[in-house]
Amino acid sequence: MSNKKFSKLNITPKLLLGAGPSNPNPEVLEAMTQPVVGHLDPTFLGIMDDVHEMLKIAFQTSNPMTLPLSGTGTAGMESCILNLVEPGDTVLGIENGYFGHRMIEVAKRSRANIIPLAFEWGKPVELEVIEQTLKDNPSINVVLAVHAETSTGVLNPIKDIAELAHKYDSLIVADTVTSLGGVDLQIDNWNIDLSYSVTQKCLGCPPGLAPVTVNQASIEKIERRAVPPNTWYYDLLLLQKTYWGAEQRTYHHTAPITMIYGLREGLRLLVEEGIEERIQKHTDNCNALRKGLEIMGLEMLVPNGNNISSLTTVKVPKEINDQQLRSELLKNHNIEISAGLGTLSGQVWRIGLMGENSKRENVFRFLEALEIELKAQGMNVSAKEAINQLA
Amino acid sequence: MSNKKFSKLNITPKLLLGAGPSNPNPEVLEAMTQPVVGHLDPTFLGIMDDVHEMLKIAFQTSNPMTLPLSGTGTAGMESCILNLVEPGDTVLGIENGYFGHRMIEVAKRSRANIIPLAFEWGKPVELEVIEQTLKDNPSINVVLAVHAETSTGVLNPIKDIAELAHKYDSLIVADTVTSLGGVDLQIDNWNIDLSYSVTQKCLGCPPGLAPVTVNQASIEKIERRAVPPNTWYYDLLLLQKTYWGAEQRTYHHTAPITMIYGLREGLRLLVEEGIEERIQKHTDNCNALRKGLEIMGLEMLVPNGNNISSLTTVKVPKEINDQQLRSELLKNHNIEISAGLGTLSGQVWRIGLMGENSKRENVFRFLEALEIELKAQGMNVSAKEAINQLA
Repeated sequence: MSNKKFSKLNITPKLLLGAGPSNPNPEVLEAMTQPVVGHLDPTFLGIMDDVHEMLKIAFQTSNPMTLPLSGTGTAGMESCILNLVEPGDTVLGIENGYFGHRMIEVAKRSRANIIPLAFEWGKPVELEVIEQTLKDNPSINVVLAVHAETSTGVLNPIKDIAELAHKYDSLIVADTVTSLGGVDLQIDNWNIDLSYSVTQKCLGCPPGLAPVTVNQASIEKIERRAVPPNTWYYDLLLLQKTYWGAEQRTYHHTAPITMIYGLREGLRLLVEEGIEERIQKHTDNCNALRKGLEIMGLEMLVPNGNNISSLTTVKVPKEINDQQLRSELLKNHNIEISAGLGTLSGQVWRIGLMGENSKRENVFRFLEALEIELKAQGMNVSAKEAINQLA
Repeated sequence: MSNKKFSKLNITPKLLLGAGPSNPNPEVLEAMTQPVVGHLDPTFLGIMDDVHEMLKIAFQTSNPMTLPLSGTGTAGMESCILNLVEPGDTVLGIENGYFGHRMIEVAKRSRANIIPLAFEWGKPVELEVIEQTLKDNPSINVVLAVHAETSTGVLNPIKDIAELAHKYDSLIVADTVTSLGGVDLQIDNWNIDLSYSVTQKCLGCPPGLAPVTVNQASIEKIERRAVPPNTWYYDLLLLQKTYWGAEQRTYHHTAPITMIYGLREGLRLLVEEGIEERIQKHTDNCNALRKGLEIMGLEMLVPNGNNISSLTTVKVPKEINDQQLRSELLKNHNIEISAGLGTLSGQVWRIGLMGENSKRENVFRFLEALEIELKAQGMNVSAKEAINQLA
């Protein structure tokens, strides 16, 4: 056993401009210091009602099954897929990035037949190819797709993919991890059957919960399952029946009380600001960042119009050491940005302006720090002109 | 969509003397307001090392695979069982309460052969019957058992059960949800193969994480699996290989940063106090509570010696309305206690003195409030004599 002495935490604040977590709103962290009560306390049941109501606003849905799962984003992915998909199903897994690939990996645990359909990372998916695949494989009854691909910065045409899925009698699971609360997302209008997201990106909370929403068509498919899903902890019908959706809430598992307090506050701030205003803010600040980077001579991975307004991917200049630059940004400027993932590792930086962090001043602070670190590696750039044009 | 106005949270503090969550240490909530950093930030990697080190002290183990899962206690249960058990296995599920039963329900999702062995709720398990069942069913290779059964207040002889399991060539999964950090628990000395617990009981943190520990024999069985476990999110080998146990940590899922800060502080306080001192404190305060309740004329469900020192079950007196008394305790005194679960519903109250809440003053505050509410229902009791004897 260890005899090490452990001291209290004393962490230097950092500006988290990576792919997430983003900095939570200070009000959210403050809400998390509210007194813990029991998971069946009437006060807490009221808080659950608030969270349910506001999550529906965020997802733009009237789905009664809309709730935060007790786990991080991948828990939401796993729960949606493992509840919906059963042995005997045929699943089309659309991949143009790391998280589309992960959906396929998770689906493999369901013992269904999986048809992976890969597109180049960093490019949008091609709708004609998707339609042809659906046509060629009439047994497909579930489609997996990512709305905002966090690994590449590509926004996929999820509304069109959903339309195709339904045209060929499939249900669609959409990953909205990096879009919920920051990018236009309309679950009901776009006919998205299941979707999952996270708290630590555009909702301005710490990581730890996975908001999900499930429509009636999905519930009916889940109810028809021959065997229960692989998971008891994330069994959506059980969770809805005994706790989240119940008239008389009893017990499924002990809810992560403090995290739910935080989510309630994050959602409250979103509703107060207005969801359209929040989305516009993300678009404006993203455009400013992209323009600033281009003025400084850097190149975007994703063209305008296909990009995600909460997450920008920019190519690492050839003469620059990726890893060193990110380390120095963190060490010298207390700014975190993210590396590329998978095939884009070393190729791009991922710069998030999410939720609380989607602010013009953060764009400027980042461009100034980037100038210093690019110069330190011998690249001749200036942030001043970019900032002047954007101010 | 709702037009409701949502105001900031302003929650009345309550004394949580139920089966959990318990009140977190104030220092823990304070630690959770520390600035969020990225899940690959060197600062956070150091915090992970601390948590790993201190969890080993709490579990009394040297298992390298000792980590907090990103979910609540049932996530720990599900992960341990679904990783260890595979189709073709024969699982003995020992049940003398709600959580033993839940282990069996979770194991059913693994497509293994399950042999349930039920004992009366509120009584300890019978070792001879367990041994006979193991002898009669040589195909059994996994045993599921609960150390401290949160639903009944019974402490099971987990060391003896582990010995029997090994005698008959089985591995054992132990639920230590209500024992870790408050009740004597020696993972290595007692040869417990896998165990899971929670943060919101004796560790003095909010709910949201599930500490688990897994020994080498279990890892070897998991490595021999013909197919991967049902779960990707809680795939222990994957999680250990890519993130928690890796030399070079990369990425599995975004860790719940803020919850990990809280757990680190809860563990720090435990290590500072000393684990033996903490255990002794739980024993002393539990004994005081039991004696006090008996002096007031109430009857224990579980005899001395078989009881859990962090959770006391007392019979609801015949003339008393269970639900009304708990509601009035909460409303008039801001004290939460828990109802009985399952077959003990309406029969017992469950009174926790866990972690931060294991204090003599809480025993007194509870007895005084109980006196008032029992009297309000016409029962003639006095807390004064009990408190005088215990002071």
